Amino acid sequence: MGRWEPNARGRLEQAAMELYTERGFEQTTVAEIAKRAGLTERTFFRHFADKREVLFWGSRTLQQHFVDAVAGAPDSAAPIDAIAGAIEAGAALLQERRDYARQRHAIIAANAELRERELIKLSWLSAALADALRRRGVTDPAADLAAEAGIAVFRIAFERWISTSAQADFPQLVRESFEELKAVTAGK
Amino acid sequence: MGRWEPNARGRLEQAAMELYTERGFEQTTVAEIAKRAGLTERTFFRHFADKREVLFWGSRTLQQHFVDAVAGAPDSAAPIDAIAGAIEAGAALLQERRDYARQRHAIIAANAELRERELIKLSWLSAALADALRRRGVTDPAADLAAEAGIAVFRIAFERWISTSAQADFPQLVRESFEELKAVTAGK
Repeated sequence: MGRWEPNARGRLEQAAMELYTERGFEQTTVAEIAKRAGLTERTFFRHFADKREVLFWGSRTLQQHFVDAVAGAPDSAAPIDAIAGAIEAGAALLQERRDYARQRHAIIAANAELRERELIKLSWLSAALADALRRRGVTDPAADLAAEAGIAVFRIAFERWISTSAQADFPQLVRESFEELKAVTAGK
Repeated sequence: MGRWEPNARGRLEQAAMELYTERGFEQTTVAEIAKRAGLTERTFFRHFADKREVLFWGSRTLQQHFVDAVAGAPDSAAPIDAIAGAIEAGAALLQERRDYARQRHAIIAANAELRERELIKLSWLSAALADALRRRGVTDPAADLAAEAGIAVFRIAFERWISTSAQADFPQLVRESFEELKAVTAGK
């Protein structure tokens, strides 16, 4: 069964990210990732279903974070404000890992299959946000519209965050993008 | 080279849609589609790259329609109004083919690969709309936000259109959904 490796997941993730950046995602094998991490392939597969999963396991955490924040918004919060609060909370979580987020984004941007996977994960995030709103009693189409608007803001603020200076504040960019969305939909 | 078949594309499309509905997309082969249409496989491949293309060739037409409508909006139109006009024009185009749209939607909903492909096509539509706005001088993030909002409205109005009575007016549902989006983003 191998020795217990408390940091195996982190070491595998780091090794994978390095290799995806150096050689490209497609050209990297699980054997190479395990070797660079100083671990076995068997250990890799105890932590990740496949090499793609290394890049996407975090989206479940993010989704749970979003959903909990919507559920925890004050009863008086309008749907869009419950969503805005959740997106901001998610941004604060990612803010801690800007270098990782930039590196991951570059790896995904370079590969069509990964870009498709990211789109799918974003559509699941949107569906999860809409479900969380419906559990607050928000009806359709308001629930779907607020969730889709939130994911659009998240995506656009994310692009701004990783493409601007290292001091950029992601939650602040989310707030600004929500204000811009309000202005845009009001016909400004 | 085969005989000239003026309606070959239409016959192949109809045969494919029937088979996808009866047996499922995955279980249908190009040979079966050609046979039901009374044509050869060679003729099929002169019209479609593969069996998936039968369901997606129309999205290029729709995209061109959207982009032309944004380009042709009055100079004075706010970005969201240029987008709303384009989405409405696209809805008017689809309105003519409601039975086809419903059937296509059911085929896509039943298959994960097709659902992913549809998501990707929608993301391309959104990118094309944002480009069309930038060519009108709209800056970022307003261009991206207006385009994303438009695609969200399109998707949500489409679902309402095909799930309600046959008399539902798709352009009207688009207008209503834009009004609802305005209300939602304004915090109502």
